[in-house]
Amino acid sequence: MAWDVEGTKRRIHAAALAEFSQFGAAGTSIDKIAKRAGVNRERVYNYYGDKAVLFSKVIRDELDKLAENVPLRQVDGPDDLARFAGAAFDYQQDHPEVARLLLWEGLADTGTVQDEGERAALYLDKARAVAAAQRAGLVNSSIESAHLVFLLIALASQWWATPQMARMLAAELGDDSPARRRAAVVQAARRIAACEG
Amino acid sequence: MAWDVEGTKRRIHAAALAEFSQFGAAGTSIDKIAKRAGVNRERVYNYYGDKAVLFSKVIRDELDKLAENVPLRQVDGPDDLARFAGAAFDYQQDHPEVARLLLWEGLADTGTVQDEGERAALYLDKARAVAAAQRAGLVNSSIESAHLVFLLIALASQWWATPQMARMLAAELGDDSPARRRAAVVQAARRIAACEG
Repeated sequence: MAWDVEGTKRRIHAAALAEFSQFGAAGTSIDKIAKRAGVNRERVYNYYGDKAVLFSKVIRDELDKLAENVPLRQVDGPDDLARFAGAAFDYQQDHPEVARLLLWEGLADTGTVQDEGERAALYLDKARAVAAAQRAGLVNSSIESAHLVFLLIALASQWWATPQMARMLAAELGDDSPARRRAAVVQAARRIAACEG
Repeated sequence: MAWDVEGTKRRIHAAALAEFSQFGAAGTSIDKIAKRAGVNRERVYNYYGDKAVLFSKVIRDELDKLAENVPLRQVDGPDDLARFAGAAFDYQQDHPEVARLLLWEGLADTGTVQDEGERAALYLDKARAVAAAQRAGLVNSSIESAHLVFLLIALASQWWATPQMARMLAAELGDDSPARRRAAVVQAARRIAACEG
């Protein structure tokens, strides 16, 4: 039987995603990832390099999927930005690991990440789409486009950054369901982007 | 010379704050904190208990200071909520360690934190102040008060959750100074809270 290289790579990738998401890069090791994947540690090094390279590969793959599933290419008005914030919330609800990877990376940030230029392109495309809509008078222009995109992502993402705070605030809420949280995010995003006011 | 108990406690507390903020609870140990404080590890256990208790003590002290410096007691209109978001931004700019403690805690969250009821009171007071203003028609009521407070905190805090994303988005910004970021936060907060729209 031929050795299943692609299957092994997939198992390593899945194990790395699970370990990194749960414990961060500093909280796990190639040994633990190899053990979780059921492979020899040398195989992980051979296929993926060291831990920093593997982390960078895993987060890039997850961010590429996020960007593909939550696009922001053409902005015709506030509703498109509200929809973007809602879709970003939904995606993280279904894939909390991508939010967690970004948080671990952020806490360990020292001023640059691997492939920063290529990763930045995913965000800058969104900022440019917003800037074009602002120039056309289609969305509010009192907040600079890059900051506006960042703040929309903030509304959609804080739930995974500080879940304990979300829970404590919800202590007296009758309905703190994901649907209700999502509605608040979408409403807030639309209001920030609205032309009037 | 008498043993300076209070001075020693302060040194331990400062060392714990620095270690927990930089590495999280899982990323440090009582040994490392004791070494950083220049005291015997037994002294840390005697004064503060184990690592979980010490973390809980440190984060509560920092959150109490945050709440004292960034109050939200009376809300007479959207400007008060904009001011709250701006003050939350400023405080974290000056004390990034409180944001980081919350993020580490959030990533390790398993469904409850130490003293959750007492900590929740700090947030619920704010939600109640917003709810009163909503009932009086002074701020927008399309977002439930607890979610509104949470989203205002999100706008003010995301900069420390994902600093790498803020940096990448700012790549083409002429001015990404803290003052400009703050202005975006305040503007967004005011728009969310505005009555009209």
